[in-house]
Amino acid sequence: MDDAIERSLTLGTAISVVRNSNHYGIAGWYAIRAAEGGLVGASMTNTSPLVAPTRARVSMLGTNPIAVAARAGRFGILCLDMATSTIPRGRIEVAARRGEPLLPGWAIGPDGSPATTPEAALAGALQPLGGTEETAGYKGYGLALVVEVLTGILAGAAFGPNIIGLFSTEAPSDLGQWYLAIDPGAIGDTAAFEGRLERLLEQLTEAPLIPHAPGPVLYPGQPEAERAERSLREGIVIDRDHHTGLLELGRRLRVPLPDPIPEPARPVAAGAMAGAPGQRVGR
Amino acid sequence: MDDAIERSLTLGTAISVVRNSNHYGIAGWYAIRAAEGGLVGASMTNTSPLVAPTRARVSMLGTNPIAVAARAGRFGILCLDMATSTIPRGRIEVAARRGEPLLPGWAIGPDGSPATTPEAALAGALQPLGGTEETAGYKGYGLALVVEVLTGILAGAAFGPNIIGLFSTEAPSDLGQWYLAIDPGAIGDTAAFEGRLERLLEQLTEAPLIPHAPGPVLYPGQPEAERAERSLREGIVIDRDHHTGLLELGRRLRVPLPDPIPEPARPVAAGAMAGAPGQRVGR
Repeated sequence: MDDAIERSLTLGTAISVVRNSNHYGIAGWYAIRAAEGGLVGASMTNTSPLVAPTRARVSMLGTNPIAVAARAGRFGILCLDMATSTIPRGRIEVAARRGEPLLPGWAIGPDGSPATTPEAALAGALQPLGGTEETAGYKGYGLALVVEVLTGILAGAAFGPNIIGLFSTEAPSDLGQWYLAIDPGAIGDTAAFEGRLERLLEQLTEAPLIPHAPGPVLYPGQPEAERAERSLREGIVIDRDHHTGLLELGRRLRVPLPDPIPEPARPVAAGAMAGAPGQRVGR
Repeated sequence: MDDAIERSLTLGTAISVVRNSNHYGIAGWYAIRAAEGGLVGASMTNTSPLVAPTRARVSMLGTNPIAVAARAGRFGILCLDMATSTIPRGRIEVAARRGEPLLPGWAIGPDGSPATTPEAALAGALQPLGGTEETAGYKGYGLALVVEVLTGILAGAAFGPNIIGLFSTEAPSDLGQWYLAIDPGAIGDTAAFEGRLERLLEQLTEAPLIPHAPGPVLYPGQPEAERAERSLREGIVIDRDHHTGLLELGRRLRVPLPDPIPEPARPVAAGAMAGAPGQRVGR
């Protein structure tokens, strides 16, 4: 990303690709890095297969996220960071723990029919954004495929169904990643660009609401930015089992864990820890 | 697009933007223009507001299409060309004519609740790809917003709710457009890039199918390419009213219409005409 940022400052725009990579964390982190310098930033990665293309009954593509970020005046940084599946696999695990039903369009079972239980979904495949063919799931499939083209295929890394499982150690993952930086200053005035985006977000967030809306219209990145701010102030609450597991792993691998933060002004659950970079919740 | 194509051949990648534009036809047409030369091509445009952001009850963003294309060996050209709404507005008009019900996630009525009749949907707004908030419609909203950032906002054109209606003549539309070309030859071997993409499409199109699949797994652009080929061979069938209207318009504006093609080998419906560029069915 830094290479694309640097070159975009003289060329107007630049792209970098990486091959032989692994899980690269939060896609939006890279896009935000460019946005912090007043650029438009974007990043994509391919991932282990978890999503069934429209009409297929097996996983052939990853959740292949797309991230795009730009500075937006008083709104801070707009950052879209989305998997191209309807939901992340973790959402199914949460539904399993809570005994919740699955919504249509989330996943299919091993036989290819819509999954109605978490067990079927975990043994089957996620559906692309949009869900079934009737509700335009082929668009999510198309987006996941375009991410493959720009990452694994363009970079010369592994791609699609040929990528090994996320937790497999039998071979290198060989993921591909893509980074884009655009300097709005190469086209016009950077402050005017930022002002226009601020104005658009103003209009969007003040829009009249649907009945029973759970809150105002949000812009991409807003919930994450608010959560990050709260975490910096109050620490990150994690459950006791997770905390114990981390302490044990830290001891075994001799990696010192960040010290728990002092008791915050507002009471939080036990196990609150200092927010170290990269500890944000994944997609 | 031609400017981006030309510069990408020396710089590896290039972007162009256009402001003060109007409806630019088929987004994929521009992307395919780059792909025909062995490049990865992409294009986006903002459009008149028809889509309500997640939680909003009014149209604030256009159907803002995204197109990406690349050469894929024996599969020809892969071309994703998708509106970021679940369906195009025309799909609702079709449902109205056929007396079909609307599917959930397609549109909301003027009061913001899900539209169940075409009348409510036409008076209301389209929903972004993904549908409601529960089925990840905020991702489609985020994509539409990112298209705005790269087109209207970056190019300094009109944006979002400030764009006038598609058929309004009260002012210039002032749409913004974005074109990207990437030369795979700047990263590695272009033939190897194309070979990898061919291999991926081979794997995808041979995937085992869900029960009652209407056909094999398709790749983006495949149905359109097959239809274009058929149209070149057999002409484009249009209904008599449309044909009469075109003849009348051509006479009034003194624009000669293409001659109807000679009777094809296979019988087709009356009114078949030669396929002139741009006559392909829109999104």
